[in-house]
Amino acid sequence: MHLYTVHDKTVVVVDILRATSCMTTAFAHGIESITPFAKLDDCLAMQKKGYFTAGERDGKKVDGFDLGNSPFEYMNPALKGKKIAFTTTNGTQAIAKSEGAREILIGSFLNLSSVTDSLLTSENNVLVVCAGWKGKVNLEDTLFAGALVEKLKDHIEPDCDAPLAAQHLYNQAKNNMVKFLSESSHVKRLARLNIRKDIEFCLTPDQYNVVPSLQAGVLSI
Amino acid sequence: MHLYTVHDKTVVVVDILRATSCMTTAFAHGIESITPFAKLDDCLAMQKKGYFTAGERDGKKVDGFDLGNSPFEYMNPALKGKKIAFTTTNGTQAIAKSEGAREILIGSFLNLSSVTDSLLTSENNVLVVCAGWKGKVNLEDTLFAGALVEKLKDHIEPDCDAPLAAQHLYNQAKNNMVKFLSESSHVKRLARLNIRKDIEFCLTPDQYNVVPSLQAGVLSI
Repeated sequence: MHLYTVHDKTVVVVDILRATSCMTTAFAHGIESITPFAKLDDCLAMQKKGYFTAGERDGKKVDGFDLGNSPFEYMNPALKGKKIAFTTTNGTQAIAKSEGAREILIGSFLNLSSVTDSLLTSENNVLVVCAGWKGKVNLEDTLFAGALVEKLKDHIEPDCDAPLAAQHLYNQAKNNMVKFLSESSHVKRLARLNIRKDIEFCLTPDQYNVVPSLQAGVLSI
Repeated sequence: MHLYTVHDKTVVVVDILRATSCMTTAFAHGIESITPFAKLDDCLAMQKKGYFTAGERDGKKVDGFDLGNSPFEYMNPALKGKKIAFTTTNGTQAIAKSEGAREILIGSFLNLSSVTDSLLTSENNVLVVCAGWKGKVNLEDTLFAGALVEKLKDHIEPDCDAPLAAQHLYNQAKNNMVKFLSESSHVKRLARLNIRKDIEFCLTPDQYNVVPSLQAGVLSI
């Protein structure tokens, strides 16, 4: 059951920490395609077909997988031109939920301006699908949604107050998002996994100018 | 389908503009009980049983009903000791969705501190159900949730980031909530109905010390 219809919309899927940040980074470094899988086993089975397998469960790399969920792993030149099968706790599920949309884009702070530009060239309505954490709200995805609203504000008319709430939060947080998020539950959870460097990187706007989009179940640029 | 389980919780139902503000005001002025109805016809049928009928659809008073959705209507001494049958676009639906909770309380800025005190005397987990607008987020209910989080912050451990987001928004808004909300879609809609006086009143904390609660489908204090 969905609160919002997607069939008439461009959906921007966001999982800042760290699925969509990894995907953005991967494409910026020449990866050919990323195929998202909701289930671990389906993802792992792609190794036999020559895919690199990537992802996490509960924030940790999965046994037997080639890659985890740190964006720095996706800067490896050995991955250039390769195909990746990807599964994460929240990010790939959010992509699955967005199926049926007119267009599905991958958003992160790393490609914020490029995503904005792409939305401005389209006539479609926009829905930002924040992956959250196990179906619940998280602050970092909400901040990205707010950043997007802030950038698009002269061109959009919000359909409810959620975009306005996100925009207010972003404007409150933007000068030091790491500090702002330091009290958020999801970031606290990740901080216990010692990935502060990942968090800082994932909150840095406009590192790359790629906009991955989903076509027939496969992400490419 | 619910994102949150209610059976082990105290649920605080909130529809600041204006259902739960009206309910709080009504009990503070001696009304005996309020029976919420999801459907208009069921509500109207209660007139024959000696109930006053009250509520709105799309922000407007319903033809044939005794009372609308302005808190000032509920200050009428003629209502003292009377029973009210109540239906609104969002508020009574939020109550219906909360059925099965261990305890259901009516929250508004008007009884903020009393609701806080009631929650502090209970061992139950707390869920704030924001009625929103036709199933979607609105800012004023979110601000109330944030005010509650701010008051309870030394006593709670949030289960996800939604309470933190609400708390941040409340702290940003608290010095002038009317101004903060002036750009929110729901308030804009209500402003077109010329109820600025209602809005200002509904955003005023701690006017009353009643905490309406639901028992067997009926609200009382």
